[in-house]
Amino acid sequence: MMMEKWRASRRFLRCSAAVSLFDRILTPTSANSACNSAFGFVNHRGSQLCNENQKRKIGTCFHFLRGDRDTTLRTSMGTGIGSTVGLQHRCFGSAASKVQRNPLFSTLNSDDISYFKGVLGEKNVIQDEDKLMIANTDWMRKYRGSSKLLLQPRSTEEISQILRYCNSRCLAVVPQGGNTGLVGGSVPVFDEVVINLSLMNNVISFDKVSGILVCEAGCILENLMTYLDTQGFIMPLDLGAKGSCQIGGNVSTNAGGLRLVRYGSLHGNVLGVEVVLANGDVLDMLGALRKDNTGYDLKHLFIGSEGSLGIVTKVSILTPPQLSAVNLAFLACKDYYSCQKLLVEAKRKLGEILSAFEFLDNLAMDLVLNHLEGVRNPLPPSMHDFYVLIETTGSDEAHSKEKLEAFLLHAMEVGLISDGVLAQDINQALSFWRVREGLSEALLKVGACYKYDLSLPIEKLYNLVQEMRERLGASAKVIAYGHLGDGNLHLNISTPQYDDKILAQIEPFVYEWTSMHRGSISAEHGLGLMKANEIFYSKSTNVFSIAREMQNNLDTDLCTYWNMEVRAKRLS
Amino acid sequence: MMMEKWRASRRFLRCSAAVSLFDRILTPTSANSACNSAFGFVNHRGSQLCNENQKRKIGTCFHFLRGDRDTTLRTSMGTGIGSTVGLQHRCFGSAASKVQRNPLFSTLNSDDISYFKGVLGEKNVIQDEDKLMIANTDWMRKYRGSSKLLLQPRSTEEISQILRYCNSRCLAVVPQGGNTGLVGGSVPVFDEVVINLSLMNNVISFDKVSGILVCEAGCILENLMTYLDTQGFIMPLDLGAKGSCQIGGNVSTNAGGLRLVRYGSLHGNVLGVEVVLANGDVLDMLGALRKDNTGYDLKHLFIGSEGSLGIVTKVSILTPPQLSAVNLAFLACKDYYSCQKLLVEAKRKLGEILSAFEFLDNLAMDLVLNHLEGVRNPLPPSMHDFYVLIETTGSDEAHSKEKLEAFLLHAMEVGLISDGVLAQDINQALSFWRVREGLSEALLKVGACYKYDLSLPIEKLYNLVQEMRERLGASAKVIAYGHLGDGNLHLNISTPQYDDKILAQIEPFVYEWTSMHRGSISAEHGLGLMKANEIFYSKSTNVFSIAREMQNNLDTDLCTYWNMEVRAKRLS
Repeated sequence: MMMEKWRASRRFLRCSAAVSLFDRILTPTSANSACNSAFGFVNHRGSQLCNENQKRKIGTCFHFLRGDRDTTLRTSMGTGIGSTVGLQHRCFGSAASKVQRNPLFSTLNSDDISYFKGVLGEKNVIQDEDKLMIANTDWMRKYRGSSKLLLQPRSTEEISQILRYCNSRCLAVVPQGGNTGLVGGSVPVFDEVVINLSLMNNVISFDKVSGILVCEAGCILENLMTYLDTQGFIMPLDLGAKGSCQIGGNVSTNAGGLRLVRYGSLHGNVLGVEVVLANGDVLDMLGALRKDNTGYDLKHLFIGSEGSLGIVTKVSILTPPQLSAVNLAFLACKDYYSCQKLLVEAKRKLGEILSAFEFLDNLAMDLVLNHLEGVRNPLPPSMHDFYVLIETTGSDEAHSKEKLEAFLLHAMEVGLISDGVLAQDINQALSFWRVREGLSEALLKVGACYKYDLSLPIEKLYNLVQEMRERLGASAKVIAYGHLGDGNLHLNISTPQYDDKILAQIEPFVYEWTSMHRGSISAEHGLGLMKANEIFYSKSTNVFSIAREMQNNLDTDLCTYWNMEVRAKRLS
Repeated sequence: MMMEKWRASRRFLRCSAAVSLFDRILTPTSANSACNSAFGFVNHRGSQLCNENQKRKIGTCFHFLRGDRDTTLRTSMGTGIGSTVGLQHRCFGSAASKVQRNPLFSTLNSDDISYFKGVLGEKNVIQDEDKLMIANTDWMRKYRGSSKLLLQPRSTEEISQILRYCNSRCLAVVPQGGNTGLVGGSVPVFDEVVINLSLMNNVISFDKVSGILVCEAGCILENLMTYLDTQGFIMPLDLGAKGSCQIGGNVSTNAGGLRLVRYGSLHGNVLGVEVVLANGDVLDMLGALRKDNTGYDLKHLFIGSEGSLGIVTKVSILTPPQLSAVNLAFLACKDYYSCQKLLVEAKRKLGEILSAFEFLDNLAMDLVLNHLEGVRNPLPPSMHDFYVLIETTGSDEAHSKEKLEAFLLHAMEVGLISDGVLAQDINQALSFWRVREGLSEALLKVGACYKYDLSLPIEKLYNLVQEMRERLGASAKVIAYGHLGDGNLHLNISTPQYDDKILAQIEPFVYEWTSMHRGSISAEHGLGLMKANEIFYSKSTNVFSIAREMQNNLDTDLCTYWNMEVRAKRLS
């Protein structure tokens, strides 16, 4: 037992690029003074973003044009896009594939095009086939619409005019941000007019006293991070898709991500929104106050409603001050129970400095090592069953390190972690993050992937993975990772190609299991087209009825297929 | 200049009960080791609550009965309650006083009483005049209804039956929690049936892994704090009224309080609610998950809607782990600009450990010293213009103190603070808090008080106080304090008695000024009866129209007068 502990500790020492906890424990005084320069790295992610993006002016990235500004996530898609025919019905993993276009929606005519050109100018009314192909296709190439028109408004007023007109003509529309969604919510299903927000990408104001940022919805998350970096603040959310996703889309889908465990959800951080309703009415709820208790706080309806109630055009958001000391540990655990216990310990021992707690299992590690170039296992050469990334963010480098080291030492001593390394510099930290953030990309490379984004009670979370493995046997690989600190499992089932027989083994089992354990079938991705008809696994019928009534009251034509039944009842 | 700094530093030394920062700076090593025992105090507020409340079982406090369990806040009201006649129209500070009872609401008859007795049992159907008097009167004795019936349901099902019945009989109801509201929202205006939640006070579950607490709405906040203390967690909110207010009322009014600056608003922390609608339908939105993106998140409609859409019966809430190191500094600043600059510095330098940033001006200090027994100025003998309380909460005593001291030293050096003391033990910390938390009580003792709870951009916040003073001259005392960290000003105008002429000088000026600066006329207290008709100062007409439509759809009879116009249009 003692020997095992020693080995675990030695691993911290042996790993060439990492600093030994073990050594530091033996010589605390000297190590303490040395660690400020050798051990830590300051705000690695923010600084890196700043360097990468210094040339990017907020407001110039038309990410959907897939130009040289494309991010890693984007370029991984390749350039060839398959046939448009039939693809829109490849709604793998969802009964929503059975949806039919409602004939009550009009189809575009030349008068419509003329009207839009009058409002937006020639160049922002796009009918070019290549560009439409991109706007019609989702990032995973699972969902594809057949829209013939892409509009790029530059202002709230233009969006209002577009929607008022579409409403009067009964033209279906789909709002589109960075098109990084994973559930088919950001692309047309049929021939909806795509309204892309990319040109609305200005920062409107930033208050350095309160940390409140007000900006247009088309601002790319990473660009906002870069902007805030110069002001000494950070965004309260961070996602793998940050280089493409837009803040309006983040708000509309209530994006979660890596920092939720520290800064909470967008319902807590978004202070205001401006929204254009389907009839063109502009709702100004763009308060820039931390507190406002004057009647119903309607902005929350639009946070996470996936564009189905209106288009978010501006956002006011509370941003935390940038703290200088960021540290990252990459750890191995022998079983899921240890990961879970480690989380409880981290919340208590790291307390106020804990800023991320992510996990992946050995199949996930295997995948990323085999399919992403340049990625290496931070803990070579043996493979472990579970890996955990713990990030801390604090205002004092020495304090943060002392807390993290004490925590890790204790975790080693009680056997919660079997190995681990601490990033020494920004490059090492980025390479650790690459393992976790590269998983979506790696999954795309191996073939078909059935993706599930589930919220579950933490104790039971991994039971589903094990049951799914037993269920599917050798026919598929079940890969698990996610935001353990938030009880959010990303369950990915990887197969050589999409196969209805496998799908039938996965669904509705995965939803039933989740519902039975009072989980949510969508933790952070939203329902989109994929889960539009599965809402009842997570919402009771009377709650749903009220939601439907609200949609009927607010939305006469917006057609993002949040719920098929709503649309069917309203227009057929 | 140098001399001044020295004097400021000496104050830290001289104040008998406080530890000198100055000394510690001269001898950092010895002070560091000594400070753990002599300097700090561990979780002073939580522990104290535990001691005070160990005998209180959650579920036994009928606070509205004003028995021996009454809190300080309660007992300050005295026992004599004035005439009921006319008092209900003393809606000082609001045009809502002009409201008339709508004759379309029924009046109670003996069949109604029999029905309620059948559902609730004899003893929970209360017609006793003394008890009704208490339920009819708000804490400030500004608002009084004339209800003849107080119901005390024990379950969601009982509330459902009550509401279904009232709905069918067109009987108006008012939900009541701890009745600690300051805007006349928790008492009847006319003869509404009072539905008091006090008997629904059970903890349903607590998950120690995720920190998620599920409980009934009638749990008293302080009792939940006591319960969590035994589990190693804390509530994410803390209010002066904690000994009486109930979690259901907190959620229904979106209560803010002292910890919002650290843990954010209830929109971020409340994970689920169970609600009974006016027609008796129960909406189960009681998810106990940190993330759930499955359609519109309707629970947010009920957070802060002041009971006007339904009665919150159960709450699921995320609770942070209890951190062991709590420190409190009581500081003096020479001007408001210094307070503001100090806040910016505190957010950056104290970062992750900052847990409260409160301010009061010299008139507020004067008031509390003169009118509350046993309160003494933590910074005798000179009076300063502004006072700031800074609380830090962290996981490591030594780290927290080091950060706090470095921050305070720097603030002294650059002249942001002119004096200050650090609490040495829990009793001293409680005495500091008593200055801030005793203000509402002290104001009640001196005569009439016009209370405003405003959210304003922090830079402009105190300008309103100065303008109000100029405006009112010697006729009134303008007293300012509040949650500076959140931009929340509690503006109190104290006069010997209520006077329409003074009111006309205050309103609508205070609302217009707030609106002009894009503030909110209710930061955390809600609209209640007081500001029911002032909503347009903070909400645009089209946003209001949608809210009204929602109320019309959901609520056929609930009558908390959230908005008079809604009620008038619906039933007259």
